[in-house]
Amino acid sequence: MATAISGMEQLAIGIDIGGTGTKFGIVDREGNVLFSSEMSTRGYKEINDFIIDLHKNLQPLIDNIGGIGRIKGIGVGAPNGNFYTGTIEYAPNLPWKGVIPLAKIIQDEFKLPVVLTNDANAAALGEMKYGAAKDMKDFIMITLGTGVGSGIVANGSLIYGHDGFAGELGHVIVIPDGRYHEGTGKKGSLESYASATGVRLTTIEFLENSETPSLLRAVPRDQLDSKKVYDAAMAGDQLAKEIFEFTGKILGLALANFVMFSSPSAIVLFGGLTKAGDLILKPTRESMEANLIQVFQNKVKILVSHLKEADAAILGASALAWDIQ
Amino acid sequence: MATAISGMEQLAIGIDIGGTGTKFGIVDREGNVLFSSEMSTRGYKEINDFIIDLHKNLQPLIDNIGGIGRIKGIGVGAPNGNFYTGTIEYAPNLPWKGVIPLAKIIQDEFKLPVVLTNDANAAALGEMKYGAAKDMKDFIMITLGTGVGSGIVANGSLIYGHDGFAGELGHVIVIPDGRYHEGTGKKGSLESYASATGVRLTTIEFLENSETPSLLRAVPRDQLDSKKVYDAAMAGDQLAKEIFEFTGKILGLALANFVMFSSPSAIVLFGGLTKAGDLILKPTRESMEANLIQVFQNKVKILVSHLKEADAAILGASALAWDIQ
Repeated sequence: MATAISGMEQLAIGIDIGGTGTKFGIVDREGNVLFSSEMSTRGYKEINDFIIDLHKNLQPLIDNIGGIGRIKGIGVGAPNGNFYTGTIEYAPNLPWKGVIPLAKIIQDEFKLPVVLTNDANAAALGEMKYGAAKDMKDFIMITLGTGVGSGIVANGSLIYGHDGFAGELGHVIVIPDGRYHEGTGKKGSLESYASATGVRLTTIEFLENSETPSLLRAVPRDQLDSKKVYDAAMAGDQLAKEIFEFTGKILGLALANFVMFSSPSAIVLFGGLTKAGDLILKPTRESMEANLIQVFQNKVKILVSHLKEADAAILGASALAWDIQ
Repeated sequence: MATAISGMEQLAIGIDIGGTGTKFGIVDREGNVLFSSEMSTRGYKEINDFIIDLHKNLQPLIDNIGGIGRIKGIGVGAPNGNFYTGTIEYAPNLPWKGVIPLAKIIQDEFKLPVVLTNDANAAALGEMKYGAAKDMKDFIMITLGTGVGSGIVANGSLIYGHDGFAGELGHVIVIPDGRYHEGTGKKGSLESYASATGVRLTTIEFLENSETPSLLRAVPRDQLDSKKVYDAAMAGDQLAKEIFEFTGKILGLALANFVMFSSPSAIVLFGGLTKAGDLILKPTRESMEANLIQVFQNKVKILVSHLKEADAAILGASALAWDIQ
């Protein structure tokens, strides 16, 4: 293992592996991303080929900061990443199937200590160290992207659960016997409504089940997304506004339930849907408050992550590395 | 403050304050309740009168074990008890209104260190130290009584949340726009279905909304309770069985959602409803598994507390005292 060169500040590598692309960078203790880059994930059928190319792509960045001796360790965020085992397990959106000993493969390739967790947990750590949840001991991070991910911090630590899989709040059932989720086969989960995919399905339902005139009727079905709904709502489209109200109502109900579980001081939202601003946040807040019992009302902040989207994933992953013993 | 008499084992006092009665006892580190007794809570309009009588009632027990010098401290479980502030706040079922500095009042009276938490958290601690959750680091305790309470343990510690009020799982909304809860004004909470009160309301609904013959039709309305439903079900009554299936389906859905939050190794159930055994446990298990995504399936045990009901509350409260510094 590498040791620090005395007199020079130690740095960490953060790697965020997504279904489409992988982002990586070198970060200092203050949360500055000194160098970063990205590469495709999708093209690699073999995990070993991917890791070899990842090393090749990271090497120039490592050379920039004076060599591997300055790196304390590598933090990795990946879908279905397990902190306890260092494996990714049955990740539906990654090209490598089954159980992959990802931390060990990266450790063997880079000769550096590696810590892995799932992408939403990494995002939560990033917010706690550098972002909206700075210095909070109790908060919940919800990522509203293609899917809905979450990381839960209580008593100042991430909750991993007995097996490392805690915090799958996207799969919590909010509407019993509600909308079918293709990926899980379950009905009425938060993810089936409050994700980009969910908003798309809501839009199609609303268009089909009403006669209300809407700018969205002119958009080809396969191009309907939350950005188009946002644009329509900003142009005064009533149906588009109702889509965000419907989504916020369900998201707010789910958030109320999460609050009654762990009583966080804040919920931090991140991801595409938050770009709709108050169109989604206002109904979400109202629905959360309406479903909370009195002792929790008007206490819990709903915050939107203010980390740069390009940096957030790398920062979050790198945050894992600082705690390596 | 008292200090231990050297050479004699230290003991703890556990006090469980309920809406009707208060149980108290002296417990050793192995979880043996050496002496215990109880008194009414309901008669006391003034908290100070209650504490003075509590002291009078505890004194003979303290004398039995050789005096107050052997007592390390006092642990108290009470509805709406707050670990951080030592206060009970707006407890609807207690005679004392507003915010009561309970820990301080008891401490001043007994001249011993006092730790307070809510009754369900105390029950969880009791299970972790002496009961079904012994040596578990991640589990959820659910008390199914007149109401539904909960205590959540993650990473080996109770989750208190930022304000001490975490773990109000009875108030989580399971059926949006479902059954109205008199106490909270909310609709569709777990407590409105899976408590003794909830089962009573379900029974009345089932009797009113069907023509099915049932032994329960002969029971006067004001005597309908889960015990009567249990007896009818054991005698082969179809409607009574359906009442437990309905209740278990909702409870299991809620448990699945809790599992996807903190991924516990077990859920420990306690209280009157568990006496129905497999009539309630079987549909609960089935519904939980049906609502879990694959990564959680067939992993989480549903256990019934095996602590003696008379001792469990005292044990749980006393467990708090061992951690006093």
